Amino acid sequence: MSSGEAAFIAALQALALPGAARGLADDCAVLGVGGENLVLTHDMMVEGVHWLAGQDPADVAWKLLATNLSDLAAKGAEPIGVLLGYTLGADDARFAEGLGEALAHFGVPLLGGDTVRGTGGRSPGAQTLGLTALGRATCRPVPSRSGACPGDGVWITGPVGAAMLGFEALQSGSTADSTAYRRPVPRLAEGRALAPLVTAMMDISDGLLLDARRMAEASGVTLALDPAPIPLPAGLPPERTRDAITWGDDYELLFTLPPGTEPPCLATRIGTVLIRGEHPLLLDQAAPEGPLGYEHG
Amino acid sequence: MSSGEAAFIAALQALALPGAARGLADDCAVLGVGGENLVLTHDMMVEGVHWLAGQDPADVAWKLLATNLSDLAAKGAEPIGVLLGYTLGADDARFAEGLGEALAHFGVPLLGGDTVRGTGGRSPGAQTLGLTALGRATCRPVPSRSGACPGDGVWITGPVGAAMLGFEALQSGSTADSTAYRRPVPRLAEGRALAPLVTAMMDISDGLLLDARRMAEASGVTLALDPAPIPLPAGLPPERTRDAITWGDDYELLFTLPPGTEPPCLATRIGTVLIRGEHPLLLDQAAPEGPLGYEHG
Repeated sequence: MSSGEAAFIAALQALALPGAARGLADDCAVLGVGGENLVLTHDMMVEGVHWLAGQDPADVAWKLLATNLSDLAAKGAEPIGVLLGYTLGADDARFAEGLGEALAHFGVPLLGGDTVRGTGGRSPGAQTLGLTALGRATCRPVPSRSGACPGDGVWITGPVGAAMLGFEALQSGSTADSTAYRRPVPRLAEGRALAPLVTAMMDISDGLLLDARRMAEASGVTLALDPAPIPLPAGLPPERTRDAITWGDDYELLFTLPPGTEPPCLATRIGTVLIRGEHPLLLDQAAPEGPLGYEHG
Repeated sequence: MSSGEAAFIAALQALALPGAARGLADDCAVLGVGGENLVLTHDMMVEGVHWLAGQDPADVAWKLLATNLSDLAAKGAEPIGVLLGYTLGADDARFAEGLGEALAHFGVPLLGGDTVRGTGGRSPGAQTLGLTALGRATCRPVPSRSGACPGDGVWITGPVGAAMLGFEALQSGSTADSTAYRRPVPRLAEGRALAPLVTAMMDISDGLLLDARRMAEASGVTLALDPAPIPLPAGLPPERTRDAITWGDDYELLFTLPPGTEPPCLATRIGTVLIRGEHPLLLDQAAPEGPLGYEHG
């Protein structure tokens, strides 16, 4: 994130409701409406930044929906519906086809939205898409990234690095499977099952190490990760482990559970929550160096 | 609207929930949540299309909020909050300043959102913004554009054409007042006061004639407008009346009331609802020719 963007987000956070401000930092807003806890998120995607120019628009539509639903999954929320903000592109019919497929797959209705055309007067620039997803929280308190307690176990629902391998396959035009990058699957059922048990939960869209550090910062603790058990995709060369744990786009859930609590879904324990030490994140007992993941902007 | 965009919107509408589909066509979605009727809208704005390149970003922020709140006003809804989708631009700090001013003015909290940077690899293109507004309906049934009945009066809350004059002042660099274009004021209080009384209501963002025809089509009636009483801004040359009633961006409310019902706010009666005849819209007893307003896309 550039300092300009950080300043802008800080300025927006100053405008936001206390408690709602976290909705501006890769997280959902939670809002009481008529006895329900509504969970709200809005994520954008830009051609050439969040997807490869020339990628199948049906896959782009799928990913736009999936990344927003992943934010709901991290709250244990049940999706209610979505609103689409769409800049017309090269193959809108194909986008609509992919969106229809994804909405049907996840059982989520399209509620509304807006479509616009870029200006004709200057270069059309990159296509920009936005999606707002609404969900209903299924338990109280709604999980957040800020509740991890010293002594808790740190868990993850699945491997990291599969999206990276998929991206590389797509970019190189190889025949290797790129599904994990093109059509991520949000952990909605897992999120709902975990929500009543976790002390903290988030999705790891920006890379395991970066998102783990964010959880540690939000919770005021240190997360000590053990590299050995971190699940990696089959076929990942061992020298690429560091890439896999910093690349992002995997949409697994990272969560913490009190000692003795077992997760009600497939998951792997990858660390322990410690009292806040010098560093918010330890990997194999040392603060990891270099970039930890994908910084937005 | 191009045929491609119309086909795309038709494809999206086929994906939408029955009853929610209208949220894709310049209207809000209405959704029951926890005993409340939630009203949802998402509108986008593109540099060079919805605002002049080089315009004060604080005014752009104001307008982005105001246009979305105007959709809520047309439902008689009380704003709950908004989510922002923001592509970083030339002066983000100034945008945040204007957004803060507008949020405070309308008493609406920022709940969350996302910021992205366009690609560096190609021309940055036009800045694209999106905003999702949530509101709480204050009466049932929630007003829509589809309830106008033969015999109803057709009313409007204020003048049309002021935004056009403001735009022209801004574009020409004259000293004339451009506030109506730069900082429109959604008719939130009027919308709430009118909601229990109206048979149909909408805001007229795209031009009086075009939006009146949309209301007529949605209601299956003919709207017969009388040009004489249509309120126009002071100083409008008489030969520009046609421009004023087709230009749009005024954000007044257009509504229908049963015979004998008087509006509880300042408003002007400009016509009568008729049984559907050959044309959905009559102006001075004839179907108006030529473009009726701003067609999206």
